[in-house]
Amino acid sequence: MRQAGRYMSEYRSLRERHSLLDLCRTPDLATEVTLQPIRRIEVDAAILFSDLLLPLEPLGIRFDFIKGEGPAIDNPLRSEADLAGIRRFEPRAELGYVLEAIRQIKGALAGRVPLIGFAGAPFTLASYAIEGGHSTSFAHTKSLMYGHPAAWHRFCDTLADVIGDYLVAQIEAGVDVVQVFDSWVGALNTSDYREFILPHTKKIFDHVAACRAGAAGEGGPGVPTIHFGVGTGSILGDLRDAGGDVIGADWRTPLDVAWERIGADRAIQGNLDPTLLLGPLDRVFAATDDVLARADGRAGHIFNLGHGILPTTPLEHVQALARYVHQKTRQ
Amino acid sequence: MRQAGRYMSEYRSLRERHSLLDLCRTPDLATEVTLQPIRRIEVDAAILFSDLLLPLEPLGIRFDFIKGEGPAIDNPLRSEADLAGIRRFEPRAELGYVLEAIRQIKGALAGRVPLIGFAGAPFTLASYAIEGGHSTSFAHTKSLMYGHPAAWHRFCDTLADVIGDYLVAQIEAGVDVVQVFDSWVGALNTSDYREFILPHTKKIFDHVAACRAGAAGEGGPGVPTIHFGVGTGSILGDLRDAGGDVIGADWRTPLDVAWERIGADRAIQGNLDPTLLLGPLDRVFAATDDVLARADGRAGHIFNLGHGILPTTPLEHVQALARYVHQKTRQ
Repeated sequence: MRQAGRYMSEYRSLRERHSLLDLCRTPDLATEVTLQPIRRIEVDAAILFSDLLLPLEPLGIRFDFIKGEGPAIDNPLRSEADLAGIRRFEPRAELGYVLEAIRQIKGALAGRVPLIGFAGAPFTLASYAIEGGHSTSFAHTKSLMYGHPAAWHRFCDTLADVIGDYLVAQIEAGVDVVQVFDSWVGALNTSDYREFILPHTKKIFDHVAACRAGAAGEGGPGVPTIHFGVGTGSILGDLRDAGGDVIGADWRTPLDVAWERIGADRAIQGNLDPTLLLGPLDRVFAATDDVLARADGRAGHIFNLGHGILPTTPLEHVQALARYVHQKTRQ
Repeated sequence: MRQAGRYMSEYRSLRERHSLLDLCRTPDLATEVTLQPIRRIEVDAAILFSDLLLPLEPLGIRFDFIKGEGPAIDNPLRSEADLAGIRRFEPRAELGYVLEAIRQIKGALAGRVPLIGFAGAPFTLASYAIEGGHSTSFAHTKSLMYGHPAAWHRFCDTLADVIGDYLVAQIEAGVDVVQVFDSWVGALNTSDYREFILPHTKKIFDHVAACRAGAAGEGGPGVPTIHFGVGTGSILGDLRDAGGDVIGADWRTPLDVAWERIGADRAIQGNLDPTLLLGPLDRVFAATDDVLARADGRAGHIFNLGHGILPTTPLEHVQALARYVHQKTRQ
């Protein structure tokens, strides 16, 4: 999950002077923000500070972040013609500032912890582009999806190409792991997921795997992939089928139940409810014990939150959680 | 689910002259709005036109509906002291306008279809009262719940008394079925649901069942109860344990999987994705066939949407869906 954020005073003070997009677009600032949590919290990996929406801009979809309301898109896609107007672009040219940030971060980390790169997956990116911001019903997105399935598939196919290219460019720039966030895909029922999303997400993972094959040809093991969504309890097996060495699970499904649905041949990432960090630490530790007990010491469990850290979270709670997990798992 | 709404032109034209709260508080208007969908759609039951939030007002929590943004609460509960300040009230006195609407609707329906009454359940009501409106993270609610569990339990116990009294008053006024909406409870993990919510929801169902025992004492079979939430895939068995002759399921979990989790001794209500109605009818019918195939003709399936109808839904699609389900199930 995103590690840097408003729960950290050093992040808030940077945000007083710079917009979220400035932080993402300026490699020095993205590097600084990526490193902030690494300095304060005992995490085992850094995650690139960036935003899921950045690839929308080279697709011709203009957006900004409105204070307290999240992303707002000026020209949301609302018709078959809008979907058809989207063209593949070259991330090395159009998102070069992200790749430069990755190179700087890798230099600054100097091998202390690995760096996770990421991108949004088709449903999540499409829903932002079509809804124009956050949504709970995804009414515009599903209208287009159900009403114009051929245009939807062509659009998602282009998104999959763009995201695949972007992740491969991140790997070439130095990230050690890539995570695909299909954050809002839990809004879909199983059969719609399989029909409208799975083939496109699979194309992304296949594209990254082909790049891994290249790396393996040079003797390397390739770059591991993580696939994450929220509210995906009923489609965890489908997320696995779409791809990912690691499947991320939110807190709604107990970890052992989620892992059973994912299958023993994949790793799992999760799944403490991040809102627990708003409450007292004894409850955080008890819930952590429960997650670890359900993982049962099996190889392939990456302890994580089930979704992002909320802005009102006390930093000390995040610090204490990371220490606690290390203490328990290194025993 | 709510049947009346902005997708009906007769509802929109009433809303031009009256606020949502006026419709709820004026028995003549609530009766008219309750009957609107019955006149246009082949549904097998009417559902009282009302709002989940009405019981908040006699609890001292002031709210209104802001156009396009949903409910807004002036004085959200944010502290242990706020929670402790909530007192049980007498629904026959404070919500008499709802009971009067029920009597009028029953008269107007003249036995054509049964009438479903409803109320919000503790987590959903508490989350509105505490967040002050819609939320995705429920950060304030969970902060209070984790941080002040004793105050939380006293508060929810009072909410359970209020909701239980309110449902019994609705039954006395004439409703034939009651539905408990814990719409947002899917935000909780299983163990938090069991600890913080289940005992209070159970108290509501036990209270209604005691009233049924009274009715049964007079020779009647009592009033059936429905228990519904969204995103509850992982806690369907816990919802069953809390109570309800019928458990409602949203569209995320296939109906047969949901029914297995609920258990064969309970009925199930659901679970077509309401956004499907935004798309073409052939797709609506195919998805309906799938729901019906998963129900496999077993007694105890109530066909329904998995959540409310969206405002941009074509009325003809809702009409065609109801006709289609009747045609298929009466064959």
